[in-house]
Amino acid sequence: MTKTIGILGAGQLARMLALAAHELGVKTICYDANDTSSAAAVTQTIQAPFEDKESLLAFASDCDVITYETESIPLAAAELLANEGIEVYPSRRALAMMQNRSLEKTFCRQLGIQTAEFTLVHNEEELRAAVFLLGYPCVLKTTMLGYDGKGQYRLKDDNDLSSLISSWKNNVGADPGVCLNEYILEQWLEHDGECSLLSVRDHDGHIKHYPLTYNQHQHGMLAYSRAPYPDPSLQKKANEIAERILQHFSYVGVLAIEFFIVDEELLINEMAPRVHNSFHWTIEGATTSQFANHIRALLHWPLGSCEAIASSHLFNCIGQLPSCESILSYPGAYYHDYGKMARPGRKLGHVTWCDFNHPGDTEIATVLWSEINNIYN
Amino acid sequence: MTKTIGILGAGQLARMLALAAHELGVKTICYDANDTSSAAAVTQTIQAPFEDKESLLAFASDCDVITYETESIPLAAAELLANEGIEVYPSRRALAMMQNRSLEKTFCRQLGIQTAEFTLVHNEEELRAAVFLLGYPCVLKTTMLGYDGKGQYRLKDDNDLSSLISSWKNNVGADPGVCLNEYILEQWLEHDGECSLLSVRDHDGHIKHYPLTYNQHQHGMLAYSRAPYPDPSLQKKANEIAERILQHFSYVGVLAIEFFIVDEELLINEMAPRVHNSFHWTIEGATTSQFANHIRALLHWPLGSCEAIASSHLFNCIGQLPSCESILSYPGAYYHDYGKMARPGRKLGHVTWCDFNHPGDTEIATVLWSEINNIYN
Repeated sequence: MTKTIGILGAGQLARMLALAAHELGVKTICYDANDTSSAAAVTQTIQAPFEDKESLLAFASDCDVITYETESIPLAAAELLANEGIEVYPSRRALAMMQNRSLEKTFCRQLGIQTAEFTLVHNEEELRAAVFLLGYPCVLKTTMLGYDGKGQYRLKDDNDLSSLISSWKNNVGADPGVCLNEYILEQWLEHDGECSLLSVRDHDGHIKHYPLTYNQHQHGMLAYSRAPYPDPSLQKKANEIAERILQHFSYVGVLAIEFFIVDEELLINEMAPRVHNSFHWTIEGATTSQFANHIRALLHWPLGSCEAIASSHLFNCIGQLPSCESILSYPGAYYHDYGKMARPGRKLGHVTWCDFNHPGDTEIATVLWSEINNIYN
Repeated sequence: MTKTIGILGAGQLARMLALAAHELGVKTICYDANDTSSAAAVTQTIQAPFEDKESLLAFASDCDVITYETESIPLAAAELLANEGIEVYPSRRALAMMQNRSLEKTFCRQLGIQTAEFTLVHNEEELRAAVFLLGYPCVLKTTMLGYDGKGQYRLKDDNDLSSLISSWKNNVGADPGVCLNEYILEQWLEHDGECSLLSVRDHDGHIKHYPLTYNQHQHGMLAYSRAPYPDPSLQKKANEIAERILQHFSYVGVLAIEFFIVDEELLINEMAPRVHNSFHWTIEGATTSQFANHIRALLHWPLGSCEAIASSHLFNCIGQLPSCESILSYPGAYYHDYGKMARPGRKLGHVTWCDFNHPGDTEIATVLWSEINNIYN
């Protein structure tokens, strides 16, 4: 019997999940309230509001299991489906927690997992008190719906604080970020680098971890990743953290955790209950891609090996795509175009370079990176 | 600008071409007179007769370039498109030649490329004369539309000949194979093995070759392939043969050549102007898949490296699919389900095993092969 996976969301992550599903003969249907065009080129899609119970249930009735491509889907949609007895993975409890930075950090504390210091902020008074408590530099973040650096305000000194508060006062309604009524103020961590872990857990509790990936951000968005990031001690620490979280939720599917590296320790920056940009290199560079492993977990199929089969370098294409001809002229370079309309700050595709043909060589990666970076300057 | 490739045919080869295209952000539309369901799950499809000029031109008007998944499409359809100024690759002249076993072998002779001895046969009299000329064992093949062993009759002795001729006389109309009015009778080559080469040529004449693949057939159908088949001398000979054919046609796209290995020489068995079953292992086991390279060639993009990144073993799933759960429990095994209805003798999927996690190990491949083979017994 052909299996069908329903995916809430129809962006590039849903698209890549659908492509991995197709290889396995698995059907997919994507459901999104907004633009479905990225996924629609490769699979069946439905465009309807997440609040539209009838459409949501009709969609679910064609699916064996439901997942989501982003934690920003309304929790109510996942709740509604689950309350009708429809399987939704990863767990709604994990989703609810990871939708909210405050819950996420509180959860980590409860499990004894390190994060940056933080405090909740609802207004100017609390913000000033929080800055006094945590000191500069610090960063104000909306508790919900922030991603890719959106809804974040870094504060270096009193001038930054004053201008944030005055823009806040002058522009109420102008910036959705500062109009939300809940934030966290977070200590700015001087870190030695950022890395991420992707882990996957199946219905029977088996867990596999991909190699740690080293990440670089630009303007709050992931720009570059490199894997594997070979630090056995950090890998062990990351795996242990992931296992505690996965077991806590009897989690099914992939879980991404972003870490700050501080003095050879890992502090959680944030988590995502889904496939993750920093692991797109697994399509070519690992035995099993993150997309295939998420699907395997959902369908009670054996998890695939997460081993890297090359050193991989991942470059995000943001706002504008590089020339395909030029990228593909590098041996071992893979070009991924998500089929999205170009818009400043939008993730339109990515390029992976694997060192299959040039083991250990990093020069091509450097040249590629500079070529991709140049189009933004 | 998003590119769109039109594919004549909507079976598993079209499906896998579409999946490779999607990774590159390339759209595909498949056109088939028959069942389009394999491709329809992953891309736009059109079901209409190949003789329907209006539908064919409407289809083509949405495409930047047209290709085909099989040489069994009516040549007239390719001619019609090309006569309207639409780009169709590979070359129609190559298509015409490879549709017809007699033309194919004659062409090889003209280029001085070795094949089995053969002679044309249109009726009983010619068949008897041909058998007298070539001797037993020999094999009668329809000149056109034969594939996967269909339309082939192996003759070991006079008994086989007599029973073929009497079935021929008694069953005119019953077997489309023997009702066609043209055959070739071919000398049966006692060979040491069979192998195939896949080569790709771009618009500028650049050519790349995949490693030779060793093939085993069962009941006339490809059952198992192993790559790379490391014989530098044979590889060199195969590459040279391919290059002469590719240059002859100013060919664009992939070309598959199946060889008999006889005393360390290569004799062409047949050719296919398309992606080929014996190179499905390139999806995971080569730097660039055959599907991606065909698309790159069509779109004037640089060809990708054809190097193997593992030892790969390919198992065809014919008539029945093995259990996905079971296959995926082998580390390094990849399961491909074409989304087709099961039917005896039908290619429904394939399994590739790459030795990423167990370099040089062939034991898992043997176990896998026995497991897949067992379901047919």
